[in-house]
Amino acid sequence: MDYQKILDTIFDEMSYRDVNGKVASYIPELAKVDRKKFGMHVYCGDEKHFCFGDSEELFSIQSISKVFTLSMAMRLMGESLWDRVSVEPSGDPFNSLTQLEYEHGIPRNPFINAGALVISDILVDQLEDPKQELLDFVRKITGNPDIDYDEKVAQSEKANGYRNIALVNYIKALGNIKSDVDPIVDFYFYQCSLKMSCKELAQAFMIFANKGRILSTGEKILKPKSVKRINALMQTCGFYDEAGEFSFQVGLPGKSGVGGGIVAIHPDNYSVAVWSPILNEKGNSELGMKALERFTTLTGVSVF
Amino acid sequence: MDYQKILDTIFDEMSYRDVNGKVASYIPELAKVDRKKFGMHVYCGDEKHFCFGDSEELFSIQSISKVFTLSMAMRLMGESLWDRVSVEPSGDPFNSLTQLEYEHGIPRNPFINAGALVISDILVDQLEDPKQELLDFVRKITGNPDIDYDEKVAQSEKANGYRNIALVNYIKALGNIKSDVDPIVDFYFYQCSLKMSCKELAQAFMIFANKGRILSTGEKILKPKSVKRINALMQTCGFYDEAGEFSFQVGLPGKSGVGGGIVAIHPDNYSVAVWSPILNEKGNSELGMKALERFTTLTGVSVF
Amino acid sequence: MDYQKILDTIFDEMSYRDVNGKVASYIPELAKVDRKKFGMHVYCGDEKHFCFGDSEELFSIQSISKVFTLSMAMRLMGESLWDRVSVEPSGDPFNSLTQLEYEHGIPRNPFINAGALVISDILVDQLEDPKQELLDFVRKITGNPDIDYDEKVAQSEKANGYRNIALVNYIKALGNIKSDVDPIVDFYFYQCSLKMSCKELAQAFMIFANKGRILSTGEKILKPKSVKRINALMQTCGFYDEAGEFSFQVGLPGKSGVGGGIVAIHPDNYSVAVWSPILNEKGNSELGMKALERFTTLTGVSVF
Amino acid sequence: MDYQKILDTIFDEMSYRDVNGKVASYIPELAKVDRKKFGMHVYCGDEKHFCFGDSEELFSIQSISKVFTLSMAMRLMGESLWDRVSVEPSGDPFNSLTQLEYEHGIPRNPFINAGALVISDILVDQLEDPKQELLDFVRKITGNPDIDYDEKVAQSEKANGYRNIALVNYIKALGNIKSDVDPIVDFYFYQCSLKMSCKELAQAFMIFANKGRILSTGEKILKPKSVKRINALMQTCGFYDEAGEFSFQVGLPGKSGVGGGIVAIHPDNYSVAVWSPILNEKGNSELGMKALERFTTLTGVSVF
Repeated sequence: MDYQKILDTIFDEMSYRDVNGKVASYIPELAKVDRKKFGMHVYCGDEKHFCFGDSEELFSIQSISKVFTLSMAMRLMGESLWDRVSVEPSGDPFNSLTQLEYEHGIPRNPFINAGALVISDILVDQLEDPKQELLDFVRKITGNPDIDYDEKVAQSEKANGYRNIALVNYIKALGNIKSDVDPIVDFYFYQCSLKMSCKELAQAFMIFANKGRILSTGEKILKPKSVKRINALMQTCGFYDEAGEFSFQVGLPGKSGVGGGIVAIHPDNYSVAVWSPILNEKGNSELGMKALERFTTLTGVSVF
Repeated sequence: MDYQKILDTIFDEMSYRDVNGKVASYIPELAKVDRKKFGMHVYCGDEKHFCFGDSEELFSIQSISKVFTLSMAMRLMGESLWDRVSVEPSGDPFNSLTQLEYEHGIPRNPFINAGALVISDILVDQLEDPKQELLDFVRKITGNPDIDYDEKVAQSEKANGYRNIALVNYIKALGNIKSDVDPIVDFYFYQCSLKMSCKELAQAFMIFANKGRILSTGEKILKPKSVKRINALMQTCGFYDEAGEFSFQVGLPGKSGVGGGIVAIHPDNYSVAVWSPILNEKGNSELGMKALERFTTLTGVSVF
Repeated sequence: MDYQKILDTIFDEMSYRDVNGKVASYIPELAKVDRKKFGMHVYCGDEKHFCFGDSEELFSIQSISKVFTLSMAMRLMGESLWDRVSVEPSGDPFNSLTQLEYEHGIPRNPFINAGALVISDILVDQLEDPKQELLDFVRKITGNPDIDYDEKVAQSEKANGYRNIALVNYIKALGNIKSDVDPIVDFYFYQCSLKMSCKELAQAFMIFANKGRILSTGEKILKPKSVKRINALMQTCGFYDEAGEFSFQVGLPGKSGVGGGIVAIHPDNYSVAVWSPILNEKGNSELGMKALERFTTLTGVSVF
Repeated sequence: MDYQKILDTIFDEMSYRDVNGKVASYIPELAKVDRKKFGMHVYCGDEKHFCFGDSEELFSIQSISKVFTLSMAMRLMGESLWDRVSVEPSGDPFNSLTQLEYEHGIPRNPFINAGALVISDILVDQLEDPKQELLDFVRKITGNPDIDYDEKVAQSEKANGYRNIALVNYIKALGNIKSDVDPIVDFYFYQCSLKMSCKELAQAFMIFANKGRILSTGEKILKPKSVKRINALMQTCGFYDEAGEFSFQVGLPGKSGVGGGIVAIHPDNYSVAVWSPILNEKGNSELGMKALERFTTLTGVSVF
């Protein structure tokens, strides 16, 4: 399949002018991002790369990082992880606190904030230096030793993170947090601040399209069963309150972040990352959703 | 692929003795079903059939019928249907009434009861004789003119249906029901009482694995886009509060009913139906889930 | 105390021109009421009457009727009534359905709709002709044999009562409704349609200021303990989501209705009714609240 | 009225052996309290004192302290306080977090934890040394310069206070907390640890029965309007989820704490405090409720 031609078609067809959403503004560092940015990168199973636009520019991956920390937690705990966090979609975000109360502090899935904070607790509890180990993990699966945190974004998150601090304290009151609150939220704010490009995200997520192995080196990072679990979670819970719409439009397991990045995979075929900072009202990249919808239509290989 | 051998393996490996769940008991007619029943049927794209056990015995398809009525509503309204019902997972069932209130009477998806009742309203509003037309529709896509309602089950549903009657009145108060309440719930209770076998369900659901066409006749029933939408909905919302787990275990779009039936499809490959009336605590067939997990593992063609 | 002088002061001080709220419009019959209407009536323990304005004009008492049906249910069941309905304030109305679910169909108190519907069920279940018996009861405690239902209002309620019908069905599903749904809601819509004047309401409510006896005849209607319970309930739950504000402003047990009526009592002293159809945003008579606040300030006998 | 005789009757009639509840155990310091303790103190408008049992023994006043901090906040802000916290009952405690979300961080009343924490924020924000000023305030209205915090209880609260820390962070995220989180919760945990006896509580609360003035000195502490507001709040919100039951049983404005203390007032007549650490399932002193019910029955001066 001529992926480059398909990407060129998409780049010709659409631009930031076609969408009306807003760039994330809850922290100042994100609000500064240029709304014209638009890039996409496809990485294929036969080690080929295709791209357009700002595909090598770094941006804040935000919630996409939850897939990395989940992967690290699965390496440590395997399926026993599901005693601490559930695997089901969460419905309306308004209900999340009540739901935590009824479900005894077990978050609905690892991609809502409550769940990601329980994952942070696990990593903080079990690792010597979780921030460094997360960097090491992402650098290894990406093959790029330069990936790093954005210190300004991390500090900015921290200064506005009352809701997340509330969540950790609340879950701790319900008995599902072991470590102290401060290192958990510190780690969480740092993971959100990871800076990566579309190219790097596509490289990193190839492990989920390649049964858990790094494509270039063959090194085994995750068991196939863990990959299946993570892909199923991305399919049902990866897009905030728009997982159903994304399943229909794109039909691939994926994960988005409020920085405007989306990354998705087609098992055994490819990983694909797209970035445009303009968000729709559900908090997902508006242009990114369109580009991926077009991509799966033009390639004709959506799962449904 | 030798599907019959795979089915034989599954039938050898598991039985009702391995599971501890309970047969549905909220209406007397369902409570009477023999818990030893177990059957499975696979229907392939090249018109071949494979089966074991009680695959030709009729049972109450219950919520599986929601896929049929959704299909009929999509034929009538196309994508404008989504003004009346949303397409996202619903989270904890406890929140459903509050969620309806906040979301102005728009149910989260067509597979929760609130959503199915709005679909009933649409069919009752737009069709001359909705009960007959549903029979006609199911008989046509199945190729079996004998499919019928179970009058006893329908009456039993009606006598215990206060929660559903409450839902219709509540949604009507919120402005999202047009018809009178009585014909809507009457139609709903009848659709739940449809009696079908695994074989018939596999035949009927082949349209979702065959881009909207009846395999044997080639007749076009649904647009490919509608099929994609329905499949995406089955993937994210088809299993009550266990959609995430089913995505992981089985990885196929599907729909279950409290009668113990589950039907799933693999686009362009096959449709598969399984029946065992013993339910797990989430209300899905315990043996049915296991059988489908084993089936996708042995065939090796799960979507993830 | 010169009650007439106090009433004259209030009538001089305030008018419908001072308030900005709206007349209830959820049913057409209520929307037609003249917003200029304003009347007040005080009935004293020594059988004296004081009044101003439209105090003898009939209006729709709506939720004030819940105090009458509660009284009838207490006569039938005594304190065992509290197995069917609780006695605590309900908080935000948005939560009422969820609360019903968690509390197994036991409404929070008899003055929210869910609670009043359970009371209706009790009366429909235990009385031969509940509509007639309610009329008889109100006529007797008021001393006026002409009090009657407003047929148009009752029909109008019925045509818009989906939310109440939903509630009855929902509570029946939860096991706390015994009778059929239709007679319960029919009775409920009729009780809401009772037409009374300020004078009649003050006369009727004198039993709650007179230890359960009709002042003029001395006939015992309720046990003192039942009166204490009803007064405590009016104090904490009588004003929708404004019970705390009313306790502060007025400091008397009372009950309001969306028809714009409010009636309150001071044990052993007086009963007082006021009517102005203009409602504040919480659904209580705006001018009525002000008039009662002024009345308790000028008489200096608020409970706090 | 012979209050001492009434108290003697109560002391004769009831003891800790008659009740089955449990002593609070959520922090170790409270769990240690002897369940046999039982004391009561009445302080009259004519400066007379009556008592029985352990009425001069110090105990942890816990939530009763919320009335003191509310009084201090009303002195600072008057009625403008109600922009930051509402005045209505809260219903089921389960809903409190969801309610905060919908009501934009405005707690339902100052006696639920969320409300008391907003009050803490106000005092921390506006006072130089809030802990010392609270001591000064309580010592002054009580007339006892020895009243102090229980350092062990305060530390114990802090070590188990994740839910309260969560609340402050959550309300801060919703925009209704100005100060830093740490000093707010520190102050809150200290206020809960105040040690007082029944006698001291009755003396302190006399200001609410005496139009805002200290009875012994005549010094004006609160405006009469503020007293009316606080009394109305105690009437409708002072007993967790048992305000309605307390209104019926006792009929006085009051406040309870999980330390087993209850204090109530009858305007212009008396203040009364009772202590028994055995709690009923709603978290109020079981024996204390009974003793107060008996007290208002025997004195015959309940408000209803």
